Order: sequence, then C-alpha cells, then structure tokens
Amino acid sequence: MKLSSRIDVMKPSAIREAGKLIAAKENCISFAAGLPSPDFIPVDIVKEVTNKILSENGIQALQYGPTKGHEPLLRKIQERMAGKDMKCGIENLQITTGSQQAISFSAMLFIDKGDTLITENPSYLGALASFAPFECNVKGVDADEHGMKMDELEALLESDPKAKMIYVVPNFSNPTGKTWSLERRKKLYELASKYDLPIIEDDPYGEIRFEGEVVPSIKSFDVEERVVYLGSFSKIFCAGLRVGWIMANPDLINKYEMIKQGADLQSNQLAQMQVEEYLNQYDLDEQVKFIIESYKAKRDLMCNLIDEHFPESIKRTHPEGGMFVWLELPEGADATALLPKALEKNVGFVPGGPFFPGTGNDNTIRLNFSTMAPDKIEEGIIKLGELFRDEF
Amino acid sequence: MKLSSRIDVMKPSAIREAGKLIAAKENCISFAAGLPSPDFIPVDIVKEVTNKILSENGIQALQYGPTKGHEPLLRKIQERMAGKDMKCGIENLQITTGSQQAISFSAMLFIDKGDTLITENPSYLGALASFAPFECNVKGVDADEHGMKMDELEALLESDPKAKMIYVVPNFSNPTGKTWSLERRKKLYELASKYDLPIIEDDPYGEIRFEGEVVPSIKSFDVEERVVYLGSFSKIFCAGLRVGWIMANPDLINKYEMIKQGADLQSNQLAQMQVEEYLNQYDLDEQVKFIIESYKAKRDLMCNLIDEHFPESIKRTHPEGGMFVWLELPEGADATALLPKALEKNVGFVPGGPFFPGTGNDNTIRLNFSTMAPDKIEEGIIKLGELFRDEF
Repeated sequence: MKLSSRIDVMKPSAIREAGKLIAAKENCISFAAGLPSPDFIPVDIVKEVTNKILSENGIQALQYGPTKGHEPLLRKIQERMAGKDMKCGIENLQITTGSQQAISFSAMLFIDKGDTLITENPSYLGALASFAPFECNVKGVDADEHGMKMDELEALLESDPKAKMIYVVPNFSNPTGKTWSLERRKKLYELASKYDLPIIEDDPYGEIRFEGEVVPSIKSFDVEERVVYLGSFSKIFCAGLRVGWIMANPDLINKYEMIKQGADLQSNQLAQMQVEEYLNQYDLDEQVKFIIESYKAKRDLMCNLIDEHFPESIKRTHPEGGMFVWLELPEGADATALLPKALEKNVGFVPGGPFFPGTGNDNTIRLNFSTMAPDKIEEGIIKLGELFRDEF
Repeated sequence: MKLSSRIDVMKPSAIREAGKLIAAKENCISFAAGLPSPDFIPVDIVKEVTNKILSENGIQALQYGPTKGHEPLLRKIQERMAGKDMKCGIENLQITTGSQQAISFSAMLFIDKGDTLITENPSYLGALASFAPFECNVKGVDADEHGMKMDELEALLESDPKAKMIYVVPNFSNPTGKTWSLERRKKLYELASKYDLPIIEDDPYGEIRFEGEVVPSIKSFDVEERVVYLGSFSKIFCAGLRVGWIMANPDLINKYEMIKQGADLQSNQLAQMQVEEYLNQYDLDEQVKFIIESYKAKRDLMCNLIDEHFPESIKRTHPEGGMFVWLELPEGADATALLPKALEKNVGFVPGGPFFPGTGNDNTIRLNFSTMAPDKIEEGIIKLGELFRDEF
C-alpha cells in the first residue's frame, strides 16, 4: 500500500522519543519533557467544579457541542485577552485541542506544498512536527538575545517569494527561554506588513514571567489584523484537558472553524466547561503567581548549579520566564550521543539539534526546570556536571 | 495575506450549518444532527468514575500523557475488539479525538494532492469535509441495498491508477442507514487486495443493531493487514468526551502516532481515563442493549409515521441499526430549498446533496431518529408530512 509523500518527511518527536527512553528507566530524573509542575495541578478544585458541572449541566458536558467552542468559555477568554491589551469579540476566537492543534491548523490554512514557512532558529520542535505534513520548506532565522535577527529575516523575505507564514514564540521561547524585545516585535510586524504575511504568535508561556517588564504582544498592536495569536491553558491550568484557543480576525476564524470541523468536529466539551467553571469560581492569576514563584526558584537553582558544576565551555541562556534553559556545548559535541550516557546516570534531557529546521547544531540541549522537584534538579544537574566535566 | 489553495475547496459542514439555523429557533424539532439520545448519557456514573479517578490518580488525569493513548484504555479496547473477532495487541491501536480525527489522519497518511479517494455514494459528510484539505478527487461509487456496487468499483479501479484509499461505513451507514452484505465486504476486500489499496472501515454505529444477523467486519478477515478499522465511544457512551480509536497494523499505527504528535500531541487524558474506568466498573454491552431498544422503537415510530403521512412518491430506507433514515424525494425536488419551509414549521433536517462527493442528488434528505423524544418524532414527522404533501 502506498503512503502519501508527506510521510517521508515526517519523523517522530525527539521529545516524545526521549521521553520513552526516560520512561523506560525507573525514577529517572527528567529535564526532557515540557511538563508543568504537578504541584500546581489543582486536582481538588477540578473535582469540585466537575461535580458542579455534571450535577447542573451533565448532558451538555457529555454530548456533542459546537465546533467553535463552548460559548461561556469563549467569553471568559475574551475577558482575559482584554486584560492583556488584546480586545476582541468571540467572533475572534476558536477553541482548539491545546495550542499544538492551532499550530497545525495554521499550516493547513496558510501553507501549500513547496511554500516557505519561517521560524526562529531554533524553534519549538512540536511546531516543526506539525509543519512537516504540509511539505513546506521551513527556514530558520537566527536570533540573538533580543529575538530574531531582523536583517536576516528581511534578506530572506526579499529573496524568497514563496514565504507564506512566520511562526514565532516571542515570550520565553521553547526551546531557548529567550524573550523578544519590543523593538524586534515591531520590526517583525513591519516586515510582515511589507510582505503581506501572517504572523503566528504562539504564547503558551507568556504569563509565567519571573522578572523584568512585560513586553506587549505583537497581537496588541496588530492594526492590520494579520497576527494569529495562540493561547493555551496547558501551562497555567491543566495540560491533560487540552484546551487552547486561536485569536484572529473573524474571516480567518471562520476558516479555522471549518478546518476544525473536518479535523475532529470539536474539542472535548467537558474540558471546556471545566476550564470555564474554574475561571468563574477561582482566580487564575493567583494560581499563576504561585507557579511563577516556584518556577523562578527552580530556574535560580538550576542556573546556579549549572554555573557551579558545568565546565565553563558550556554556555546557557538566562530565561526571564517560562520553563526552559538552553545549553550550548563546545563546538563539535553531540548531545544525542551524550543522552545514553546521561541516562546511565539516570538523568534525561532533549538534544537540541531537532529544534533547528535545518541540520547541525547537535551541540545543544534543552533543559526543563518546571517538572522536577528541587532536590531532583540538584541531583540531576550535579550528575550532568560530572558527565560534562568528563567529556569537555 | 494568501491562504493555501486547499481552502478554496473546503466548505462548512452542511450538518453543522443546518444545526446553527435550527439552534437559532426556539424548541425546534431537529432530525438534523447525528446526536446520540440524551437518555443514555450516564451522567451520574460519569460523575462517580470521575471522582474516583481524580481522587486516586488526579495528577495523571490532568497532566500530559502519551500520544498513543492511556495504556489501560488501550487494553480495554483490545479486549472489546477480541470479543468482536478482531484480535489485536495494543501495538495495533491508537487513540484519537473521536473517529472524525481518525478519518482525517487517514487521508493525511494515504492521500497526496490529485489522488483519488473512493467512498460510497452517498457517504458521511464529515468524512468528505476531512478529505477536502488534502485536495484529492473524491469519487463516489453507487450502492444498492447490499452495499457498494462492486462492478462499478472495479471499473473505477481499473480506469483510475491514482486511486489510493477506499473509505466505507458498512454498518448502518451515515447517511443512508444501509448495511453491506458479507459478500460485498468480501468482494471489496478482494478488489482492495488486487489493487493493493487500504480500506478505511469506519464503524461508529456497528454495535447498535436492532434486527438481523451481525455481519462480520471487514477487519475480521483482514489477513493482509490492509484494513484500518475506526471505532468510537461517541455513539454508545459519551460523544462530548471525544474518544475514538484506530486499529491497524503496527507499522501504520506508528505513522498514525507520528501524525497525532504533530496534530495535537494527544487526546484529553481525563476523558480516556473516564472511558477506561467506566469499562472497568460497568457493562457497556448492557448500556448498548438499552440504546438498541430505544432506537429500535424510535426507528419503528419514525418509519411508520413516514409511511402514514408522507406522499407515496417519497422513498425511504429501512435501517437495521444506527441512527438514520434516508429519504428520496421525487426527481427534481430541492431539499435545501425545502429546509427553510420546514423550519417555519419548527422542524429541521439535513439536505442530502452534500453527502454526495459529486453534485446533484438534491432530492435527498437525512433524518436522524436517535436524538428526539418519541412525541417530538411524531409531531415533527407529521409536520414534515404536511409540507411534503403540499409540495409533491
């Protein structure tokens, strides 16, 4: 039986594959997955709101619902967006199964086979995986500490008429933890406008800022309505419920809704009502404060331990928020070859190479600091330090 | 901003669009949506199993989980499949967000732009919607009361080397309610084998049989492992939880898992555990018996009322199971033009034309009999009878 040609360019997620290796080892310390800390999954509250929903609106929660999403949840999201300088109506919103689905739908909406799709270099691995089925050329543009390099982006846009979409994670990027300056965001918008391209602004970590000033989202100054903003409750509420959303102009939202109809009809109805009822009864911003406090302490712990135990030849980023630190090992190092050695010491990570649309950059590693408890972070980083001092 | 070329061939679901018209009318009697009866949504049981899950494994239920699916649920599905002469291991299974997602993934797996995808004529509208983004030629093969006409299928396969996949709903088809004979299933398999094509066997209604003998699934005699069987809990448990599955050979399942990683990472974790815990504690087959008893009575009621109140020029199918009756109005009638007139009488349905991959066949209607209570079925069919007697 013949498979489609797109299958040839798809590959399993390096994160989920590393995760399988790690899961196979008992009590392995994992810096691999981008899991939110289990400490902030409000199980008892979810139990309480679920009981309320099933007692009062059980049929609605378990029956088919609208493709666009549960309207009271859309209204809650509308309120939250307005509080972040992104005013919109519910005609600007579509519910998705996490923002992962929204990324995939965006490629489906904007990309034809052979088109060019631009990302930061490196970029979110899961986004690269979702782009692959659309058989496009994903081109990464390098970044410095202020964000994507705009001269390189402009040169690419000038030279490549097939560029159709720009995907970015401007806040505490996955994988590097870097944040874009306002100036870079404005310049990106100016270039997208000049070349009439949509910007997919993926912001799953934006609320988890430990320090520094909030930088306005690109969507917040999107007078031309060319930004598709992707939000998610996965990192600040419950990832397993898989509730995210798209905010865009109503014409695009109608197209996203049509894509959603064919893709899976609708997201889980109960999950949407759980999020909505939680937002009704509780203060998510308070919850986010606890997350920030904990993750900041974990980042400090991890970064200090890295500085203390890793050889000086290894560079790291200093994330102002989010869940990840990014390592650059000495030139020529191969993180994929190091992973089995780390696993022997019962520590896991994700090699950084797969986060680059192109090849190379095998001397990079993404470390997650949100999932593990502080004592495990300490143990794991010290063990990685031993390995790295042996190697470099 | 330029959209992908696939968007030009996509259109909103006629079911969901008719649904919006109907929802806009208060207390409208709807034969449009394919909703399971609310009478059999076991709200109290779901509440109980959810409390147990959140009390005992709350973190797991609300945290990220495996892309392939919750392993204990996969084992339960494996058991159910074995009970239906479809033995498999969990390496043959992948969880999806309803079988709608599995249909969409199947097109992604097998279909390139310009390929031919074969369905029954008419076929499930949601499947046609999920195929559209892959810019293929969907060709419908007519059916009689025993299933797809095999001479027509063979002629098509002989003449069209671009045929890549055959999608069928052999039990109580959506939209016609027809069931394929064993002979036709075997002949389909033989032809698929001859032309080395995969068969996507979509079976969301198979367990809801009112009368007649169970006909073996195509998957049950799939010695060459070319059948991709799609199952769903939507019609026999809770549609809003969006839990379906794919059963196929392990190589294909690995590809489906990879597609799922990019598409949405995973389905809702709590929902998978809810289904699993329900299957652990309760007897789904008992539940299905109640559904069958109720739907059979509703089918009898609807069919008898149709025979009594509709003009003789309108033909109907006689479904042995499932949720739908199919009407053929006199040649030249336009069901889409009739819908607003029916809505004036506060009755809704889905015009049948959009269920055909090609154009024409506007003189057809799909009626759902599972959703509405008996008194509403009676009232609605009598009102439709008034309209149709005026028209024909």
